[in-house]
Amino acid sequence: MNGSSTPFDWPVRVYYEDTDAGGVVYHTGYIRYCERARTEWVRQLGYGQRELAAAAGVLFTVVSLSAHYHAPARLDDLLVVRSVATVAGGASVSFAQQVLRDGVLLASVDVRVACVDATTLRPRRIPEPLRKEMTA
Amino acid sequence: MNGSSTPFDWPVRVYYEDTDAGGVVYHTGYIRYCERARTEWVRQLGYGQRELAAAAGVLFTVVSLSAHYHAPARLDDLLVVRSVATVAGGASVSFAQQVLRDGVLLASVDVRVACVDATTLRPRRIPEPLRKEMTA
Amino acid sequence: MNGSSTPFDWPVRVYYEDTDAGGVVYHTGYIRYCERARTEWVRQLGYGQRELAAAAGVLFTVVSLSAHYHAPARLDDLLVVRSVATVAGGASVSFAQQVLRDGVLLASVDVRVACVDATTLRPRRIPEPLRKEMTA
Amino acid sequence: MNGSSTPFDWPVRVYYEDTDAGGVVYHTGYIRYCERARTEWVRQLGYGQRELAAAAGVLFTVVSLSAHYHAPARLDDLLVVRSVATVAGGASVSFAQQVLRDGVLLASVDVRVACVDATTLRPRRIPEPLRKEMTA
Repeated sequence: MNGSSTPFDWPVRVYYEDTDAGGVVYHTGYIRYCERARTEWVRQLGYGQRELAAAAGVLFTVVSLSAHYHAPARLDDLLVVRSVATVAGGASVSFAQQVLRDGVLLASVDVRVACVDATTLRPRRIPEPLRKEMTA
Repeated sequence: MNGSSTPFDWPVRVYYEDTDAGGVVYHTGYIRYCERARTEWVRQLGYGQRELAAAAGVLFTVVSLSAHYHAPARLDDLLVVRSVATVAGGASVSFAQQVLRDGVLLASVDVRVACVDATTLRPRRIPEPLRKEMTA
Repeated sequence: MNGSSTPFDWPVRVYYEDTDAGGVVYHTGYIRYCERARTEWVRQLGYGQRELAAAAGVLFTVVSLSAHYHAPARLDDLLVVRSVATVAGGASVSFAQQVLRDGVLLASVDVRVACVDATTLRPRRIPEPLRKEMTA
Repeated sequence: MNGSSTPFDWPVRVYYEDTDAGGVVYHTGYIRYCERARTEWVRQLGYGQRELAAAAGVLFTVVSLSAHYHAPARLDDLLVVRSVATVAGGASVSFAQQVLRDGVLLASVDVRVACVDATTLRPRRIPEPLRKEMTA
């Protein structure tokens, strides 16, 4: 059985480091922002990335992603990353993420993340308590 | 009429700046490598990005991309980015790109790039001489 | 007459994008964190970077910096950047910045920033109201 | 006894990923370029970073750096990083590095790098054959 999370919002500010000579956020910036939001979503479920590796022996790793760019973000913008997660099967999670400014969609990013063994990098079942909370 | 370019190979070396705490290249790294390859492909056709903006008044901007990660690249690796371009319509180019190490596919990246006015950022026809060379 | 600001603290979280294959924050990461803190310090005085460029016609640009690395920051760390600014002369500001974790100094960064014309990039006097607030 | 290396030149191309909304290379870019040049200098002495960690059990880590910015590099620029290394004592190397465009100095970066144990991160003597070649 699959389950989708309730949407999780995470604010991100645009700094010079994120922009390029076109005057806007460089295209990989939105993808980095989305990873911050995924990390914070897992953190509010009670799990840091380092604890996951140390205690549960697992890492989450990006398997694939797609990004669509609708309108550019600029220096100083305060953005929101809105994320919905869907646990599909036992070892992977799909995220539908949107980067918004004042409710306007700037970029949408879909990411599939796999749970892997922190040492062998082979697929591993998501630890049960985390898996449960992910779809609560 | 559409046309595909002959494959263009561009070498990339992996440095510390490209890696993350997982010990491998961070997932946006492959996407940056692919942009370097696209830039060098246009350069060998005789066009720098800055000259394009200054002389022709156009920029190329990423509309969408998808990336699939098959195996990780590591510190010190010498990679090759293999790119094939397809001009589709008058104002956009699609690239099918592969990041390879010793012939093994590590990541595949598909990117759609639009030609836009350097000032208004509105769609613009690709300048004719460049368009011709892109499909030669 | 010169004047130093009261210390300004800004929190920063460490994400995968900030780390390298050594398992710690890459050395330019601390320098980027310090720029975020400088930007937020100017923002709480009432000035965004884009408004400064648009309204006052000035940019702040880094003239020189030095960094000393004492101990590494790691994935998931919650850091604080502590900044003290000293306005020296009419067109430049010096920042003494510290990156701390639980009060322990990880890196210290000293930066000299010049106020320049947004178009010509030539030195410009810091706009008076901002200059006053900078040393309040 | 100390010894300085002969200068080592390494070319670097500026891509969009390196620039910021000011239209020039972001200030940490020059510092990353200098690390690429140090890495290539060690590589031409016969040592990759990964082999150093695996075979000799050592890492090189940045202890401190200072950077002075003289003139900006721009998109598409072909730069040269010129590096001179000085081995000082048994466990550290100092680099004086210059980022040049057509012989014009854009930025100068001085970096002190320490040789540390790859596991404990404690200072370690530079492996003798490498140390010898570093000052040849």
